[in-house]
Amino acid sequence: MSYDFWYWPTIPGRGEFVRLTLEACGIPYRDRAREDGAQAMIADMGLHDTAPAFAPPYLAIDGATVAQTANILFYLAERHDCGPSAMKARTWLAQAQLTIMDIVAEAHDVHHPVGVGLYYEDQKAEALRCAQEFRATRIPKYLGWFERALAAQEGDWLAGGRWSYADLSLFHLIAGLRYAFPQRMATLSGTFPKLSVLHDRVAALPELQDYLSSDRRLPFNEDDIFRHYPELDAP
Amino acid sequence: MSYDFWYWPTIPGRGEFVRLTLEACGIPYRDRAREDGAQAMIADMGLHDTAPAFAPPYLAIDGATVAQTANILFYLAERHDCGPSAMKARTWLAQAQLTIMDIVAEAHDVHHPVGVGLYYEDQKAEALRCAQEFRATRIPKYLGWFERALAAQEGDWLAGGRWSYADLSLFHLIAGLRYAFPQRMATLSGTFPKLSVLHDRVAALPELQDYLSSDRRLPFNEDDIFRHYPELDAP
Repeated sequence: MSYDFWYWPTIPGRGEFVRLTLEACGIPYRDRAREDGAQAMIADMGLHDTAPAFAPPYLAIDGATVAQTANILFYLAERHDCGPSAMKARTWLAQAQLTIMDIVAEAHDVHHPVGVGLYYEDQKAEALRCAQEFRATRIPKYLGWFERALAAQEGDWLAGGRWSYADLSLFHLIAGLRYAFPQRMATLSGTFPKLSVLHDRVAALPELQDYLSSDRRLPFNEDDIFRHYPELDAP
Repeated sequence: MSYDFWYWPTIPGRGEFVRLTLEACGIPYRDRAREDGAQAMIADMGLHDTAPAFAPPYLAIDGATVAQTANILFYLAERHDCGPSAMKARTWLAQAQLTIMDIVAEAHDVHHPVGVGLYYEDQKAEALRCAQEFRATRIPKYLGWFERALAAQEGDWLAGGRWSYADLSLFHLIAGLRYAFPQRMATLSGTFPKLSVLHDRVAALPELQDYLSSDRRLPFNEDDIFRHYPELDAP
């Protein structure tokens, strides 16, 4: 079987965390909004009443949805045996993934601190203040936490001897932060050696080479969560 | 056995979602920071390296932590059989809970739009703009989604014929929004009849009466996520 995967068709966004896992685990899927457009997705979202999706990304399965990025990944890992099966490791990976989603939300809110319904240009003054706090405090706090968690593992990954969806997500998080805040991330690069190594290891995974060099991997851009607005970056 | 539960001792916060489930499911726990203080919690957080908690709330189990509110609830429901066991229902409840956590985060960011490291007074201008958007757009969008999901179920709860942790959380969300935005929630009250009924049903659960009338249930206050700042409310 093949999953119907739905996400905004022109940005990596939160959908990218799901795409990376679908691709690396070799799970067949159709990227439906890239095939049929965003309007088809909005129409599809209206069809699932008993388990609706509040927002993309989601999988449409048997008339219901599996939504919320961390929940989708947890579901895929359990259903397709692509990840550790012990409850302790599964719970830890979910915890790490939810923490990734928290910094992703904060990275978005840097350019939309007042509200998602307004343009960046209409909240630029607030964004400048928000970015300062995010660069100075939040990035080091989150990355320091991931670095500490990685350093405490016996192997090279967040859990067990093999990569999991949370490692793939961490790769995309680092890539996104480097895209959006190149100056700040350059300053911090020496502080998080294990995260840098993990980023490079995921980028080199044989399971991902075909995907990463294809046009299925969408480039970062300024409609996305991670946006490079030079005025929001600093060393 | 009894869980060591850790959360800031003077606010309901995100910890309240966990307390409600521990109490309603009859799971023994010690509210450690209320016994030993916040400093003891900060010291405890430094002890768990392989699965650290990024932030409270968390359970400390065998030297590791189970953190992230939705993850804790998923873990407790699975481990203590207090919730549906079918994968479809478990996945849907996790999805609903994560959506609750999303509006909880937004309700917090209304009074801290620029950053958690600054006082409300230092970001009040931004908060006024943020509250307007939250009241006008975000509350109706989220509550409309929950109302629709409830209306599509066969029974009175979010999944199956019995309450789950996500129903308990929805009760606390409604209570929190009513505390923080009493004027706005009064205006909207007729729009979400099923949510109001669910709130009252949870408040009347026999399993919760002892807890809700005890001092273990902390009152809402202005150090919490849901804060009643009259200037941020309007009909």
